[in-house]
Amino acid sequence: MSAPSKTGRLTVVLVAPRNPLNIGAAARAMSNFGFSRLCVVNPYALAFRDARSAVGGSKVLASAEEYSSVADAVADCTLVVGTTAVGCRTLQHPLLRLEHGARVIRKRMVAGRVALLFGSEKRGLSNADFSHCHWLLHIPTSQDNISMNLGQAVAVCLYELVRDPRAPKLADLPSPAAAGDVERLTAMLFDALYASGFLIRKPTSDAEERVRRLVRRLKLSRRDMPSWLGILHQIVWKLHAEKPR
Amino acid sequence: MSAPSKTGRLTVVLVAPRNPLNIGAAARAMSNFGFSRLCVVNPYALAFRDARSAVGGSKVLASAEEYSSVADAVADCTLVVGTTAVGCRTLQHPLLRLEHGARVIRKRMVAGRVALLFGSEKRGLSNADFSHCHWLLHIPTSQDNISMNLGQAVAVCLYELVRDPRAPKLADLPSPAAAGDVERLTAMLFDALYASGFLIRKPTSDAEERVRRLVRRLKLSRRDMPSWLGILHQIVWKLHAEKPR
Repeated sequence: MSAPSKTGRLTVVLVAPRNPLNIGAAARAMSNFGFSRLCVVNPYALAFRDARSAVGGSKVLASAEEYSSVADAVADCTLVVGTTAVGCRTLQHPLLRLEHGARVIRKRMVAGRVALLFGSEKRGLSNADFSHCHWLLHIPTSQDNISMNLGQAVAVCLYELVRDPRAPKLADLPSPAAAGDVERLTAMLFDALYASGFLIRKPTSDAEERVRRLVRRLKLSRRDMPSWLGILHQIVWKLHAEKPR
Repeated sequence: MSAPSKTGRLTVVLVAPRNPLNIGAAARAMSNFGFSRLCVVNPYALAFRDARSAVGGSKVLASAEEYSSVADAVADCTLVVGTTAVGCRTLQHPLLRLEHGARVIRKRMVAGRVALLFGSEKRGLSNADFSHCHWLLHIPTSQDNISMNLGQAVAVCLYELVRDPRAPKLADLPSPAAAGDVERLTAMLFDALYASGFLIRKPTSDAEERVRRLVRRLKLSRRDMPSWLGILHQIVWKLHAEKPR
Protein backbone atom coordinates (compact mmCIF):
# COMPACT_ATOMS: atom_id res chain seq x y z
CA MET A 1 0.00 0.00 0.00
CA SER A 2 1.28 3.44 -0.84
CA ALA A 3 2.04 5.97 1.85
CA PRO A 4 0.08 4.48 4.76
CA SER A 5 1.16 7.44 6.87
CA LYS A 6 -0.99 9.72 4.75
CA THR A 7 -4.18 7.68 4.98
CA GLY A 8 -4.81 9.15 8.44
CA ARG A 9 -5.22 12.53 6.74
CA LEU A 10 -8.40 11.53 4.90
CA THR A 11 -11.84 11.96 6.45
CA VAL A 12 -14.65 10.02 4.80
CA VAL A 13 -17.92 11.90 5.29
CA LEU A 14 -21.25 10.13 4.71
CA VAL A 15 -24.03 12.69 4.36
CA ALA A 16 -27.50 11.49 5.40
CA PRO A 17 -26.90 7.76 4.89
CA ARG A 18 -30.11 5.72 5.24
CA ASN A 19 -28.98 2.08 5.29
CA PRO A 20 -26.95 0.58 8.15
CA LEU A 21 -25.45 -2.01 5.77
CA ASN A 22 -24.03 0.79 3.65
CA ILE A 23 -22.54 2.58 6.64
CA GLY A 24 -20.98 -0.72 7.68
CA ALA A 25 -19.73 -1.39 4.14
CA ALA A 26 -18.13 2.08 3.94
CA ALA A 27 -16.37 1.45 7.27
CA ARG A 28 -15.20 -1.98 6.08
CA ALA A 29 -13.72 -0.57 2.88
CA MET A 30 -11.93 2.11 4.95
CA SER A 31 -10.43 -0.58 7.14
CA ASN A 32 -9.46 -2.65 4.06
CA PHE A 33 -7.51 0.24 2.58
CA GLY A 34 -6.03 1.61 5.80
CA PHE A 35 -8.23 4.68 6.41
CA SER A 36 -9.63 5.37 9.85
CA ARG A 37 -11.59 8.62 10.18
CA LEU A 38 -15.29 8.36 9.41
CA CYS A 39 -17.77 11.19 9.94
CA VAL A 40 -21.50 10.81 9.50
CA VAL A 41 -23.72 13.86 8.94
CA ASN A 42 -27.40 13.59 9.85
CA PRO A 43 -27.70 9.82 9.45
CA TYR A 44 -31.09 8.21 9.82
CA ALA A 45 -30.75 7.67 13.56
CA LEU A 46 -31.77 4.04 13.50
CA ALA A 47 -29.41 3.25 10.63
CA PHE A 48 -26.39 4.67 12.45
CA ARG A 49 -27.30 2.85 15.67
CA ASP A 50 -27.79 -0.43 13.82
CA ALA A 51 -24.53 -0.06 11.92
CA ARG A 52 -22.55 0.60 15.11
CA SER A 53 -24.07 -2.31 16.98
CA ALA A 54 -23.60 -4.81 14.12
CA VAL A 55 -21.64 -7.93 15.03
CA GLY A 56 -18.06 -7.59 13.84
CA GLY A 57 -18.43 -3.82 13.64
CA SER A 58 -15.02 -2.37 13.01
CA LYS A 59 -12.84 0.03 14.97
CA VAL A 60 -13.61 2.55 12.23
CA LEU A 61 -17.32 2.44 13.06
CA ALA A 62 -16.77 2.48 16.80
CA SER A 63 -14.83 5.74 16.52
CA ALA A 64 -17.08 7.29 13.85
CA GLU A 65 -18.11 10.88 14.62
CA GLU A 66 -21.63 12.20 14.16
CA TYR A 67 -22.33 15.78 13.03
CA SER A 68 -25.42 17.76 12.28
CA SER A 69 -23.89 19.77 9.43
CA VAL A 70 -21.38 19.31 6.64
CA ALA A 71 -19.61 22.50 7.77
CA ASP A 72 -18.87 21.00 11.20
CA ALA A 73 -17.76 17.64 9.78
CA VAL A 74 -15.18 19.18 7.45
CA ALA A 75 -14.09 22.10 9.66
CA ASP A 76 -10.49 20.89 10.12
CA CYS A 77 -9.96 19.88 6.48
CA THR A 78 -7.99 22.00 4.03
CA LEU A 79 -9.53 20.37 0.96
CA VAL A 80 -13.16 19.25 0.68
CA VAL A 81 -14.14 17.02 -2.26
CA GLY A 82 -17.66 15.85 -3.10
CA THR A 83 -18.49 12.74 -5.11
CA THR A 84 -21.10 12.70 -7.85
CA ALA A 85 -22.49 10.03 -10.17
CA VAL A 86 -23.23 12.67 -12.77
CA GLY A 87 -20.38 13.13 -15.20
CA CYS A 88 -21.77 15.78 -17.50
CA ARG A 89 -24.54 17.87 -15.97
CA THR A 90 -23.84 21.55 -15.77
CA LEU A 91 -22.34 21.58 -12.32
CA GLN A 92 -21.21 24.81 -10.67
CA HIS A 93 -17.99 23.04 -9.65
CA PRO A 94 -14.88 21.77 -11.36
CA LEU A 95 -15.35 18.04 -11.92
CA LEU A 96 -12.46 15.56 -12.02
CA ARG A 97 -12.50 11.91 -13.02
CA LEU A 98 -11.41 9.67 -10.15
CA GLU A 99 -8.10 8.78 -11.84
CA HIS A 100 -7.10 12.47 -11.93
CA GLY A 101 -8.82 13.64 -8.75
CA ALA A 102 -7.20 10.95 -6.61
CA ARG A 103 -3.78 12.24 -7.67
CA VAL A 104 -4.69 15.74 -6.48
CA ILE A 105 -6.06 14.38 -3.19
CA ARG A 106 -2.92 12.33 -2.57
CA LYS A 107 -0.78 15.43 -3.02
CA ARG A 108 -2.98 17.53 -0.75
CA MET A 109 -2.93 14.85 1.98
CA VAL A 110 0.79 15.57 2.38
CA ALA A 111 0.01 19.05 3.68
CA GLY A 112 -3.28 18.70 5.53
CA ARG A 113 -6.55 16.89 6.06
CA VAL A 114 -8.82 16.14 3.11
CA ALA A 115 -12.55 15.39 3.38
CA LEU A 116 -14.22 13.11 0.83
CA LEU A 117 -18.01 13.43 0.86
CA PHE A 118 -20.55 10.79 -0.22
CA GLY A 119 -24.27 11.55 -0.45
CA SER A 120 -27.26 9.48 0.56
CA GLU A 121 -28.17 6.32 -1.35
CA LYS A 122 -31.26 7.92 -2.86
CA ARG A 123 -30.23 11.41 -3.88
CA GLY A 124 -26.49 11.73 -3.54
CA LEU A 125 -25.15 15.08 -2.38
CA SER A 126 -27.33 18.19 -2.63
CA ASN A 127 -26.28 21.51 -4.12
CA ALA A 128 -26.06 22.81 -0.55
CA ASP A 129 -23.62 19.96 0.27
CA PHE A 130 -21.64 20.71 -2.92
CA SER A 131 -21.26 24.35 -1.87
CA HIS A 132 -18.88 23.20 0.89
CA CYS A 133 -16.67 21.46 -1.69
CA HIS A 134 -13.66 22.81 -3.57
CA TRP A 135 -14.33 20.45 -6.46
CA LEU A 136 -16.17 17.24 -7.33
CA LEU A 137 -14.98 13.72 -8.07
CA HIS A 138 -16.62 11.41 -10.61
CA ILE A 139 -16.22 7.63 -10.79
CA PRO A 140 -16.11 6.75 -14.51
CA THR A 141 -19.22 4.55 -14.68
CA SER A 142 -21.03 3.30 -17.76
CA GLN A 143 -23.65 5.67 -19.19
CA ASP A 144 -26.21 2.85 -18.89
CA ASN A 145 -25.96 2.71 -15.10
CA ILE A 146 -24.27 5.62 -13.37
CA SER A 147 -25.71 4.97 -9.93
CA MET A 148 -23.31 3.07 -7.70
CA ASN A 149 -24.01 1.40 -4.40
CA LEU A 150 -22.67 3.63 -1.59
CA GLY A 151 -20.35 1.02 -0.06
CA GLN A 152 -18.97 0.12 -3.47
CA ALA A 153 -18.41 3.78 -4.41
CA VAL A 154 -16.44 4.31 -1.18
CA ALA A 155 -14.38 1.15 -1.85
CA VAL A 156 -13.52 2.21 -5.42
CA CYS A 157 -12.50 5.75 -4.39
CA LEU A 158 -10.32 4.55 -1.51
CA TYR A 159 -8.73 1.87 -3.70
CA GLU A 160 -7.77 4.53 -6.25
CA LEU A 161 -6.20 6.56 -3.43
CA VAL A 162 -3.93 3.70 -2.31
CA ARG A 163 -3.26 1.94 -5.61
CA ASP A 164 0.40 1.96 -6.49
CA PRO A 165 1.44 0.88 -9.97
CA ARG A 166 5.08 1.01 -8.87
CA ALA A 167 4.58 -1.57 -6.12
CA PRO A 168 6.36 -4.89 -6.63
CA LYS A 169 4.34 -7.41 -8.61
CA LEU A 170 4.35 -9.89 -5.66
CA ALA A 171 5.30 -12.83 -7.85
CA ASP A 172 6.38 -12.75 -11.42
CA LEU A 173 5.10 -15.09 -14.02
CA PRO A 174 7.23 -18.29 -14.05
CA SER A 175 10.67 -18.33 -15.58
CA PRO A 176 10.93 -20.33 -18.79
CA ALA A 177 12.61 -23.71 -19.16
CA ALA A 178 16.13 -24.03 -20.54
CA ALA A 179 16.46 -25.08 -24.18
CA GLY A 180 18.42 -28.22 -23.19
CA ASP A 181 15.54 -29.51 -21.05
CA VAL A 182 12.99 -28.64 -23.74
CA GLU A 183 15.04 -30.61 -26.28
CA ARG A 184 15.26 -33.63 -23.93
CA LEU A 185 11.48 -33.50 -23.64
CA THR A 186 11.15 -33.23 -27.41
CA ALA A 187 13.32 -36.31 -27.88
CA MET A 188 11.23 -38.28 -25.37
CA LEU A 189 8.01 -37.18 -27.06
CA PHE A 190 9.45 -38.27 -30.39
CA ASP A 191 10.30 -41.64 -28.91
CA ALA A 192 6.72 -41.91 -27.60
CA LEU A 193 5.26 -40.93 -30.96
CA TYR A 194 7.20 -43.70 -32.76
CA ALA A 195 6.65 -46.27 -30.00
CA SER A 196 2.91 -45.57 -29.91
CA GLY A 197 2.70 -45.77 -33.70
CA PHE A 198 1.59 -42.13 -34.16
CA LEU A 199 4.47 -41.26 -36.47
CA ILE A 200 4.43 -44.59 -38.29
CA ARG A 201 0.73 -44.16 -38.92
CA LYS A 202 1.01 -40.58 -40.19
CA PRO A 203 4.49 -40.08 -41.57
CA THR A 204 5.48 -36.65 -42.86
CA SER A 205 8.83 -35.49 -44.15
CA ASP A 206 9.17 -32.65 -41.65
CA ALA A 207 7.75 -34.52 -38.65
CA GLU A 208 10.70 -33.74 -36.39
CA GLU A 209 10.56 -29.98 -37.02
CA ARG A 210 6.80 -29.92 -36.51
CA VAL A 211 7.04 -31.70 -33.17
CA ARG A 212 9.89 -29.45 -32.07
CA ARG A 213 7.84 -26.32 -32.86
CA LEU A 214 4.79 -27.84 -31.13
CA VAL A 215 6.77 -28.34 -27.92
CA ARG A 216 8.31 -24.83 -28.06
CA ARG A 217 4.85 -23.27 -28.31
CA LEU A 218 3.95 -24.85 -24.95
CA LYS A 219 6.13 -22.19 -23.28
CA LEU A 220 7.13 -24.66 -20.58
CA SER A 221 8.43 -23.24 -17.30
CA ARG A 222 11.69 -24.26 -15.64
CA ARG A 223 9.72 -25.33 -12.61
CA ASP A 224 7.44 -27.76 -14.46
CA MET A 225 10.16 -29.51 -16.49
CA PRO A 226 10.92 -32.27 -13.94
CA SER A 227 7.21 -33.23 -13.86
CA TRP A 228 6.86 -33.37 -17.65
CA LEU A 229 10.17 -35.23 -18.11
CA GLY A 230 9.08 -37.76 -15.45
CA ILE A 231 5.66 -38.23 -17.03
CA LEU A 232 7.06 -38.79 -20.52
CA HIS A 233 9.85 -41.02 -19.21
CA GLN A 234 7.28 -43.30 -17.62
CA ILE A 235 5.07 -43.35 -20.72
CA VAL A 236 8.03 -44.15 -23.00
CA TRP A 237 9.17 -46.90 -20.62
CA LYS A 238 5.68 -48.42 -20.59
CA LEU A 239 5.35 -48.18 -24.38
CA HIS A 240 8.63 -50.05 -24.89
CA ALA A 241 7.82 -52.57 -22.11
CA GLU A 242 4.58 -53.49 -23.88
CA LYS A 243 6.21 -53.94 -27.28
CA PRO A 244 6.80 -57.72 -27.00
CA ARG A 245 3.10 -58.37 -26.60
CA MET B 1 -14.73 4.37 -20.09
CA SER B 2 -11.95 2.59 -21.89
CA ALA B 3 -12.63 0.06 -24.61
CA PRO B 4 -16.27 -0.73 -23.91
CA SER B 5 -16.17 -3.25 -26.74
CA LYS B 6 -13.82 -5.43 -24.75
CA THR B 7 -15.87 -5.52 -21.56
CA GLY B 8 -18.11 -8.16 -23.17
CA ARG B 9 -15.11 -10.48 -23.15
CA LEU B 10 -14.97 -10.71 -19.36
CA THR B 11 -16.92 -13.34 -17.43
CA VAL B 12 -17.32 -12.69 -13.71
CA VAL B 13 -17.61 -16.03 -11.89
CA LEU B 14 -18.93 -16.15 -8.33
CA VAL B 15 -18.07 -19.49 -6.74
CA ALA B 16 -20.47 -20.67 -4.01
CA PRO B 17 -21.81 -17.24 -3.01
CA ARG B 18 -24.01 -17.39 0.10
CA ASN B 19 -25.61 -13.95 0.36
CA PRO B 20 -28.18 -12.68 -2.15
CA LEU B 21 -27.18 -9.07 -1.38
CA ASN B 22 -23.63 -9.84 -2.46
CA ILE B 23 -24.74 -11.50 -5.69
CA GLY B 24 -26.87 -8.43 -6.37
CA ALA B 25 -24.01 -6.08 -5.49
CA ALA B 26 -21.63 -7.91 -7.83
CA ALA B 27 -24.19 -7.63 -10.65
CA ARG B 28 -24.70 -3.93 -9.90
CA ALA B 29 -20.96 -3.21 -10.06
CA MET B 30 -20.79 -5.09 -13.37
CA SER B 31 -23.56 -2.92 -14.74
CA ASN B 32 -21.87 0.25 -13.40
CA PHE B 33 -18.65 -0.56 -15.23
CA GLY B 34 -20.17 -1.94 -18.43
CA PHE B 35 -19.67 -5.69 -17.94
CA SER B 36 -22.49 -8.11 -18.66
CA ARG B 37 -21.61 -11.80 -18.31
CA LEU B 38 -22.09 -13.25 -14.83
CA CYS B 39 -21.73 -16.95 -13.99
CA VAL B 40 -22.56 -18.42 -10.62
CA VAL B 41 -21.13 -21.79 -9.56
CA ASN B 42 -22.99 -23.76 -6.90
CA PRO B 43 -24.67 -20.80 -5.23
CA TYR B 44 -26.73 -21.38 -2.11
CA ALA B 45 -29.96 -22.04 -3.98
CA LEU B 46 -32.05 -19.68 -1.92
CA ALA B 47 -29.48 -16.88 -2.22
CA PHE B 48 -29.42 -17.05 -6.00
CA ARG B 49 -33.23 -17.16 -6.21
CA ASP B 50 -33.55 -14.21 -3.82
CA ALA B 51 -30.94 -12.18 -5.71
CA ARG B 52 -32.68 -12.75 -9.04
CA SER B 53 -36.10 -11.85 -7.73
CA ALA B 54 -34.95 -8.69 -5.93
CA VAL B 55 -36.79 -5.51 -6.93
CA GLY B 56 -34.69 -3.54 -9.38
CA GLY B 57 -32.67 -6.62 -10.23
CA SER B 58 -30.50 -5.81 -13.20
CA LYS B 59 -30.28 -7.22 -16.70
CA VAL B 60 -26.95 -8.71 -15.62
CA LEU B 61 -28.66 -10.80 -12.94
CA ALA B 62 -31.53 -11.81 -15.19
CA SER B 63 -29.13 -13.28 -17.72
CA ALA B 64 -26.74 -14.80 -15.14
CA GLU B 65 -25.79 -18.42 -15.85
CA GLU B 66 -25.68 -21.12 -13.19
CA TYR B 67 -23.10 -23.94 -13.27
CA SER B 68 -22.27 -26.87 -11.04
CA SER B 69 -18.51 -26.70 -11.61
CA VAL B 70 -15.82 -24.11 -12.17
CA ALA B 71 -14.61 -26.10 -15.20
CA ASP B 72 -17.98 -25.68 -16.94
CA ALA B 73 -18.27 -21.98 -16.06
CA VAL B 74 -14.89 -21.10 -17.56
CA ALA B 75 -14.90 -23.58 -20.48
CA ASP B 76 -14.94 -20.92 -23.24
CA CYS B 77 -12.35 -18.63 -21.59
CA THR B 78 -8.73 -18.48 -22.74
CA LEU B 79 -7.50 -16.96 -19.48
CA VAL B 80 -8.80 -17.86 -16.01
CA VAL B 81 -7.82 -15.63 -13.08
CA GLY B 82 -8.67 -16.23 -9.43
CA THR B 83 -8.86 -13.53 -6.75
CA THR B 84 -7.34 -13.94 -3.31
CA ALA B 85 -7.19 -11.78 -0.20
CA VAL B 86 -3.91 -13.37 0.77
CA GLY B 87 -0.94 -11.44 -0.53
CA CYS B 88 1.94 -13.49 0.81
CA ARG B 89 1.06 -17.10 1.64
CA THR B 90 2.98 -19.71 -0.27
CA LEU B 91 0.58 -20.12 -3.13
CA GLN B 92 1.18 -22.63 -5.90
CA HIS B 93 0.28 -19.91 -8.41
CA PRO B 94 1.85 -16.74 -9.72
CA LEU B 95 0.26 -13.84 -7.83
CA LEU B 96 -0.17 -10.36 -9.32
CA ARG B 97 -1.25 -7.17 -7.59
CA LEU B 98 -4.44 -5.78 -9.11
CA GLU B 99 -2.63 -2.82 -10.71
CA HIS B 100 -0.41 -5.18 -12.71
CA GLY B 101 -2.83 -8.07 -13.20
CA ALA B 102 -5.54 -5.82 -14.66
CA ARG B 103 -3.12 -4.71 -17.37
CA VAL B 104 -2.52 -8.34 -18.36
CA ILE B 105 -6.27 -9.07 -18.35
CA ARG B 106 -6.99 -6.02 -20.53
CA LYS B 107 -4.46 -7.23 -23.09
CA ARG B 108 -5.82 -10.77 -23.08
CA MET B 109 -9.41 -9.53 -23.53
CA VAL B 110 -8.39 -8.33 -26.98
CA ALA B 111 -7.84 -11.91 -28.12
CA GLY B 112 -10.40 -13.95 -26.20
CA ARG B 113 -12.65 -14.39 -23.19
CA VAL B 114 -11.24 -13.97 -19.70
CA ALA B 115 -12.83 -15.40 -16.52
CA LEU B 116 -12.38 -13.60 -13.19
CA LEU B 117 -13.24 -15.82 -10.22
CA PHE B 118 -14.40 -14.68 -6.78
CA GLY B 119 -14.81 -17.12 -3.88
CA SER B 120 -17.50 -17.36 -1.23
CA GLU B 121 -17.80 -14.69 1.46
CA LYS B 122 -16.57 -17.05 4.19
CA ARG B 123 -13.69 -18.94 2.67
CA GLY B 124 -12.77 -17.38 -0.66
CA LEU B 125 -11.64 -19.71 -3.42
CA SER B 126 -10.42 -23.23 -2.55
CA ASN B 127 -7.21 -24.81 -3.80
CA ALA B 128 -9.40 -26.92 -6.11
CA ASP B 129 -10.88 -23.67 -7.53
CA PHE B 130 -7.37 -22.19 -7.88
CA SER B 131 -6.24 -25.22 -9.91
CA HIS B 132 -8.46 -24.00 -12.76
CA CYS B 133 -6.67 -20.62 -12.76
CA HIS B 134 -3.65 -19.52 -14.76
CA TRP B 135 -2.68 -17.05 -12.06
CA LEU B 136 -4.11 -15.15 -9.09
CA LEU B 137 -5.02 -11.52 -8.54
CA HIS B 138 -4.56 -9.70 -5.24
CA ILE B 139 -6.26 -6.44 -4.21
CA PRO B 140 -3.65 -4.45 -2.23
CA THR B 141 -5.48 -4.26 1.10
CA SER B 142 -4.09 -3.18 4.46
CA GLN B 143 -2.40 -5.94 6.50
CA ASP B 144 -4.78 -5.13 9.35
CA ASN B 145 -7.87 -6.15 7.39
CA ILE B 146 -7.32 -8.15 4.23
CA SER B 147 -10.84 -9.52 3.98
CA MET B 148 -13.02 -7.51 1.60
CA ASN B 149 -16.76 -7.65 1.15
CA LEU B 150 -17.53 -9.66 -2.02
CA GLY B 151 -19.50 -6.91 -3.78
CA GLN B 152 -16.82 -4.34 -2.97
CA ALA B 153 -14.03 -6.64 -4.21
CA VAL B 154 -15.87 -7.12 -7.51
CA ALA B 155 -16.40 -3.35 -7.82
CA VAL B 156 -12.72 -2.55 -7.18
CA CYS B 157 -11.45 -5.16 -9.68
CA LEU B 158 -13.84 -4.04 -12.42
CA TYR B 159 -13.01 -0.38 -11.79
CA GLU B 160 -9.31 -1.14 -12.23
CA LEU B 161 -10.14 -2.87 -15.54
CA VAL B 162 -11.94 0.19 -16.96
CA ARG B 163 -9.97 3.01 -15.34
CA ASP B 164 -8.27 5.18 -17.91
CA PRO B 165 -5.71 7.72 -16.74
CA ARG B 166 -5.56 9.13 -20.27
CA ALA B 167 -9.27 10.00 -20.33
CA PRO B 168 -10.09 13.71 -20.43
CA LYS B 169 -10.33 15.30 -17.00
CA LEU B 170 -14.00 16.30 -17.60
CA ALA B 171 -13.46 19.83 -16.36
CA ASP B 172 -10.23 21.52 -15.57
CA LEU B 173 -9.65 23.58 -12.51
CA PRO B 174 -10.72 27.19 -13.16
CA SER B 175 -8.56 29.51 -15.22
CA PRO B 176 -6.90 32.27 -13.22
CA ALA B 177 -7.87 35.94 -13.25
CA ALA B 178 -5.98 38.46 -15.36
CA ALA B 179 -3.45 40.64 -13.52
CA GLY B 180 -5.33 43.83 -14.53
CA ASP B 181 -8.51 42.66 -12.78
CA VAL B 182 -6.56 41.54 -9.73
CA GLU B 183 -4.93 44.98 -9.51
CA ARG B 184 -8.35 46.72 -9.81
CA LEU B 185 -9.54 44.55 -6.92
CA THR B 186 -6.41 45.38 -4.93
CA ALA B 187 -7.00 49.12 -5.43
CA MET B 188 -10.62 48.79 -4.26
CA LEU B 189 -9.56 46.77 -1.22
CA PHE B 190 -7.02 49.46 -0.45
CA ASP B 191 -9.69 52.10 -0.68
CA ALA B 192 -11.88 50.03 1.68
CA LEU B 193 -9.04 49.58 4.14
CA TYR B 194 -8.48 53.32 4.38
CA ALA B 195 -12.17 54.21 4.35
CA SER B 196 -12.91 51.72 7.11
CA GLY B 197 -9.98 52.95 9.16
CA PHE B 198 -8.05 49.63 9.08
CA LEU B 199 -4.93 51.20 7.57
CA ILE B 200 -5.13 54.35 9.59
CA ARG B 201 -5.43 52.34 12.78
CA LYS B 202 -2.50 50.05 11.97
CA PRO B 203 -0.18 51.88 9.61
CA THR B 204 2.91 50.11 8.29
CA SER B 205 5.41 51.39 5.78
CA ASP B 206 4.96 48.50 3.36
CA ALA B 207 1.16 48.28 3.68
CA GLU B 208 0.54 48.49 -0.05
CA GLU B 209 2.92 45.64 -0.90
CA ARG B 210 1.51 43.46 1.88
CA VAL B 211 -2.06 43.91 0.66
CA ARG B 212 -1.02 43.26 -2.93
CA ARG B 213 0.66 39.98 -1.94
CA LEU B 214 -2.35 39.04 0.20
CA VAL B 215 -4.68 39.42 -2.78
CA ARG B 216 -2.36 37.48 -5.14
CA ARG B 217 -2.29 34.55 -2.74
CA LEU B 218 -6.08 34.24 -3.10
CA LYS B 219 -5.50 32.72 -6.54
CA LEU B 220 -8.69 34.32 -7.83
CA SER B 221 -10.29 32.80 -10.91
CA ARG B 222 -11.27 34.75 -14.01
CA ARG B 223 -14.83 33.59 -13.52
CA ASP B 224 -15.17 34.93 -9.97
CA MET B 225 -13.67 38.39 -10.63
CA PRO B 226 -16.97 40.15 -11.53
CA SER B 227 -18.53 38.95 -8.23
CA TRP B 228 -15.61 40.11 -6.10
CA LEU B 229 -15.28 43.45 -7.93
CA GLY B 230 -19.03 44.00 -7.47
CA ILE B 231 -18.92 43.14 -3.78
CA LEU B 232 -15.97 45.45 -3.07
CA HIS B 233 -17.42 48.23 -5.20
CA GLN B 234 -20.59 48.18 -3.10
CA ILE B 235 -18.67 48.07 0.19
CA VAL B 236 -16.43 50.97 -0.85
CA TRP B 237 -19.46 52.99 -1.97
CA LYS B 238 -21.19 52.38 1.33
CA LEU B 239 -18.08 53.25 3.35
CA HIS B 240 -17.76 56.59 1.55
CA ALA B 241 -21.49 57.26 1.72
CA GLU B 242 -21.42 56.87 5.48
CA LYS B 243 -18.45 59.20 5.97
CA PRO B 244 -20.46 62.38 6.64
CA ARG B 245 -22.02 60.83 9.76
